[in-house]
Amino acid sequence: MDQPLNLNFASDNTGPVAAPIMQAMVEANTGAAMPYGADPWMDDVRDRLRALFHWPEAEVLLVATGTGANALALAGMVQPWQTIFAHRISHIEEDECGAPEFYTGGAKLTLVEGQDGKMTPDTLAAAMAPVGKKGVHGVQRGALSLTNVTEAGTLYSLAELDALTTLAHEAGLPCHLDGARFANACAALECSAADMVRGFNMVSFGGTKNGCMAVEAVVLRDPARGWELELRRKRAAQLWSKHRYLSVQMRAYLEDDLWLRNAAAANRAGQRLASGLRNIGADLVWTPQANMIFARLDRAAHARAQAEAQYYILDDAERPLCRLVCDFTKTDAEVDRLLEMVAG
Amino acid sequence: MDQPLNLNFASDNTGPVAAPIMQAMVEANTGAAMPYGADPWMDDVRDRLRALFHWPEAEVLLVATGTGANALALAGMVQPWQTIFAHRISHIEEDECGAPEFYTGGAKLTLVEGQDGKMTPDTLAAAMAPVGKKGVHGVQRGALSLTNVTEAGTLYSLAELDALTTLAHEAGLPCHLDGARFANACAALECSAADMVRGFNMVSFGGTKNGCMAVEAVVLRDPARGWELELRRKRAAQLWSKHRYLSVQMRAYLEDDLWLRNAAAANRAGQRLASGLRNIGADLVWTPQANMIFARLDRAAHARAQAEAQYYILDDAERPLCRLVCDFTKTDAEVDRLLEMVAG
Amino acid sequence: MDQPLNLNFASDNTGPVAAPIMQAMVEANTGAAMPYGADPWMDDVRDRLRALFHWPEAEVLLVATGTGANALALAGMVQPWQTIFAHRISHIEEDECGAPEFYTGGAKLTLVEGQDGKMTPDTLAAAMAPVGKKGVHGVQRGALSLTNVTEAGTLYSLAELDALTTLAHEAGLPCHLDGARFANACAALECSAADMVRGFNMVSFGGTKNGCMAVEAVVLRDPARGWELELRRKRAAQLWSKHRYLSVQMRAYLEDDLWLRNAAAANRAGQRLASGLRNIGADLVWTPQANMIFARLDRAAHARAQAEAQYYILDDAERPLCRLVCDFTKTDAEVDRLLEMVAG
Amino acid sequence: MDQPLNLNFASDNTGPVAAPIMQAMVEANTGAAMPYGADPWMDDVRDRLRALFHWPEAEVLLVATGTGANALALAGMVQPWQTIFAHRISHIEEDECGAPEFYTGGAKLTLVEGQDGKMTPDTLAAAMAPVGKKGVHGVQRGALSLTNVTEAGTLYSLAELDALTTLAHEAGLPCHLDGARFANACAALECSAADMVRGFNMVSFGGTKNGCMAVEAVVLRDPARGWELELRRKRAAQLWSKHRYLSVQMRAYLEDDLWLRNAAAANRAGQRLASGLRNIGADLVWTPQANMIFARLDRAAHARAQAEAQYYILDDAERPLCRLVCDFTKTDAEVDRLLEMVAG
Repeated sequence: MDQPLNLNFASDNTGPVAAPIMQAMVEANTGAAMPYGADPWMDDVRDRLRALFHWPEAEVLLVATGTGANALALAGMVQPWQTIFAHRISHIEEDECGAPEFYTGGAKLTLVEGQDGKMTPDTLAAAMAPVGKKGVHGVQRGALSLTNVTEAGTLYSLAELDALTTLAHEAGLPCHLDGARFANACAALECSAADMVRGFNMVSFGGTKNGCMAVEAVVLRDPARGWELELRRKRAAQLWSKHRYLSVQMRAYLEDDLWLRNAAAANRAGQRLASGLRNIGADLVWTPQANMIFARLDRAAHARAQAEAQYYILDDAERPLCRLVCDFTKTDAEVDRLLEMVAG
Repeated sequence: MDQPLNLNFASDNTGPVAAPIMQAMVEANTGAAMPYGADPWMDDVRDRLRALFHWPEAEVLLVATGTGANALALAGMVQPWQTIFAHRISHIEEDECGAPEFYTGGAKLTLVEGQDGKMTPDTLAAAMAPVGKKGVHGVQRGALSLTNVTEAGTLYSLAELDALTTLAHEAGLPCHLDGARFANACAALECSAADMVRGFNMVSFGGTKNGCMAVEAVVLRDPARGWELELRRKRAAQLWSKHRYLSVQMRAYLEDDLWLRNAAAANRAGQRLASGLRNIGADLVWTPQANMIFARLDRAAHARAQAEAQYYILDDAERPLCRLVCDFTKTDAEVDRLLEMVAG
Repeated sequence: MDQPLNLNFASDNTGPVAAPIMQAMVEANTGAAMPYGADPWMDDVRDRLRALFHWPEAEVLLVATGTGANALALAGMVQPWQTIFAHRISHIEEDECGAPEFYTGGAKLTLVEGQDGKMTPDTLAAAMAPVGKKGVHGVQRGALSLTNVTEAGTLYSLAELDALTTLAHEAGLPCHLDGARFANACAALECSAADMVRGFNMVSFGGTKNGCMAVEAVVLRDPARGWELELRRKRAAQLWSKHRYLSVQMRAYLEDDLWLRNAAAANRAGQRLASGLRNIGADLVWTPQANMIFARLDRAAHARAQAEAQYYILDDAERPLCRLVCDFTKTDAEVDRLLEMVAG
Repeated sequence: MDQPLNLNFASDNTGPVAAPIMQAMVEANTGAAMPYGADPWMDDVRDRLRALFHWPEAEVLLVATGTGANALALAGMVQPWQTIFAHRISHIEEDECGAPEFYTGGAKLTLVEGQDGKMTPDTLAAAMAPVGKKGVHGVQRGALSLTNVTEAGTLYSLAELDALTTLAHEAGLPCHLDGARFANACAALECSAADMVRGFNMVSFGGTKNGCMAVEAVVLRDPARGWELELRRKRAAQLWSKHRYLSVQMRAYLEDDLWLRNAAAANRAGQRLASGLRNIGADLVWTPQANMIFARLDRAAHARAQAEAQYYILDDAERPLCRLVCDFTKTDAEVDRLLEMVAG
């Protein structure tokens, strides 16, 4: 019998867990395993991420939420009296209820401007310029945090990432990548993970939005602060006792390129949706480059679509803006049904 | 074919997830569900816990770790300039790497003495007496936190809980129950959950140690601070996006008294092990009342046992102290095999 | 014999303590006084500020630094998961090294735009609009903080203050006034202190920049959080043991309108300097309305002036921007000598 | 004409400022001085403390409160997930309303037992032993903090200090000296300041209790964290703008051994009072070694004494315990009058 169509486009976190990942959790569910990361699967996860990133010394810490991964990584990079340079619409600024401030002990975020959800070397330089000029009176420069795929559904190219991380490194700043949609970015850019991370010091490598149940890896290029991060993870109550169920999720996610295959599927659905929307006259406010589309539609179109589909409407303009996200499960039929409803 | 014996007695977090809980996770793994607690299962979980506790207005927040549940609950009860009265060997003092201090913004813990891992009205009164006498110079009284089953594997009776919570309430202090082993305590005391919580304002209702994968409920008797706690949960990076997988764990745990049945099984195994150890001359440093035993054994006995079994040795005394914990899966055969090895 | 000219225009904190204030400290320097605010002068200070502000119930806490007054007041107004609306160039954003973040436990500042160092109802509304739209994911609206005299040396009129505080109150937000230069604002606006504070809930009433040695009053209109603020002050290490030396400073400052007379003198000097600079072709980037001038001068003019005078040059533009501040001691001769040097 | 007797024995912070210190503040009160520690007196203060301590590289930061000095020093020594070993009745535990927890970002204090307000190598070792045994689950060892003169009015000898700091250093811990009564300790031990500090990494060198108005020096043996401490001081709102008035207090305090002479006077008065009390049958609960006495007196004796004298009664025992502190101004006549009243 046919599955009903899943017309939930609210987020890539509304879908189910990918079958191989759930299967891995079921298979691991036997006998005893030592807790807190001492399970045997974690060693394999660490090895795989080291190889994937070409970071042979890297430390890897698994946590269950993307906000946790970002906040933990940033707390390992900046002091309370420093500031993190981040785009105005970054997740760490807008969607984490101040978790970075909490985990860092009160560091600031300095917001960097830029179209399409992306900062540029010029806007970053402009944001950095005044910071530190006031000596002891002002907060100090701490770190750069970039997001790829951006919160606008756009992409930084490798060259763009390089330009920004180089600028930061020249100013002595470490760089953090919020990779909640790391896989979608790799798939869309057709680049390796190692290329993606080459300018960074710490990476939040996301799994939850792309087929896992709840797992994100904080990856530290330089293991020197590994023990500190482990203490911070515990103190932040992010250390799982039954850790094997984090490890096996991440292991299955990395196995046979599932992470990339899921992301490619999500991106494909997203691009099909974007094309379709363009064809029927929607305004796409940013150019969708992965699996997330921001579109303006007539109120009537929204009314028709929301009769069956779920997604967020973000303003109450004449043509209200909506966000549509495709996860790795989205089928052509589901995308086409949404388009059909929008078209009316 | 026979399962191999599981001789891991290191903790009740080394075992697998109970079959009905894993089954519920697999069954929930289809189609879309709204994230962050807006899934349909969560409403049922809330209703069940309200009914179980006889707290009709209660708010319920699910998190993935016991440390997270405790730290979140305490942050909702005390100000940074207050102190939490807790037993010297409580989990919040010894095993959370300062998470309560972190989540509360730097509150203190005032350690209360007492044999068998339990404070008494006298020791609590003695600890409370000086606090607040120094006016603005000293930290202020904040809250009482009790643990049942205690970290010594002993139990507070209902009368003992009442005496302590009454004393705290008379001093104007709210009361928190660390219920990481709530079910084991209920099973051992043969009391209802409602009786257990009757003196408390907030409860950490544990699931992870008793058959869940990773879920604990913070239950607030008075919902007035519910929204604050939701913000604190998000800010602490404890809010799951794919929240349904927390909800269904807790729902299955509450269904058909699985929580009680698992705990009874664990306690039964624990008591069998305790009896056996007594019979072969082990010193049980506290009277085991649930599923956790602290015993002194000869070095030779440890050597024999650890050839096959896993557990923690806690000191290097002449007869080293060990901790042995039975989870809900422990069979008579497994307990007896351990006893056989210890006996030599 | 003549005093040498004091050509330090770097800040209104480079000058000496006003004679009546130093005299009061000397006079109080005899015998014993109970510490921590229990000195007899403090009662008088509290009464005077209550009368001055027409806030009959107000609580008053004295601290030694303006940053301390601001951070303490804000910590008494916002929760860690909230945000403070403040102008982009406010002192709390730019000049306190994150003290507000520290004291509040990690609250955010949301920067409000506006020319001349002043926000407007429109820019405030624009800044407030998105905050809170993201439910539990985003930080919440906390408080409004305004500065008068602004950091640009300009003034909010009473009507402008009313418009902004009304907008905030309508959104349920309490309002804080950073009054490091409260007296200069009162003197320039020729308004009463009561009129100045009428829209606010807490005020940092500055003394240090206007003739005191080191004293600022945090004034709470509603005393309900007075005890909390006292605990916060102690915990922040801002509570003086020999408190009488804070009390008598503030008492002498309030006596015979010394606060107003000093400010009027400083403003007069500032306005004389501003006029003179305009006459010799300096660009005044904002219209100086009190005792602080931001001017662009030729490099040669700076070179001449800095041969004798001290002040900060803020950029390295073609015509570098400088800040010139007159304190209450500045004489016509000193102002004129600076002008003479600039004119060349 | 005679001064009235000053019969306030409540604390060494109830007395006035020593004449040479007030005189120095008056003399410095002319012309301009650059703010925030850039005044010329500060260089001299730094040089003097370096010479006094035989710490040629030391960094020196002045703050206005003893709690501020302690909290700042500790924040520069420990991480939030570490613990500070301190005596159960230390000022940082009992009298700072959690300032160390606040400044450190939530570090713990592990209380060390010991008679007469003093820990011993044995009690310190016992307190240290379990810390760190729980790996990532427990807080880590951070620092040792000792107080001399102790809060019990007793003294650590140099040999006792050496034994404790050696034990700490062997465990890799830095050592902090709370020297709120540093001078009283030096005077009583007849040792040099350099001998007193030889085992320490950071010292809170007190001035306020011994004749200053409000100044304490945080002295860092190793200047490597000097800039961090400067940022922490500013962020904690402890950096004075009119810093010259801190500098000149400390300079006058160090000049001509005023710090030692004041302390010797206070100690002499304290010892006279202690002798007198012993002679009239008071119970001295600890042996007073400097300027602070804890004595049990009959209720009638208290009633007589408190008719004229001020001091704190600390319990409501049959013979209530009181604390009597002599500052540097206490005359023989004042001490004798108190004794007379007590004797009845």
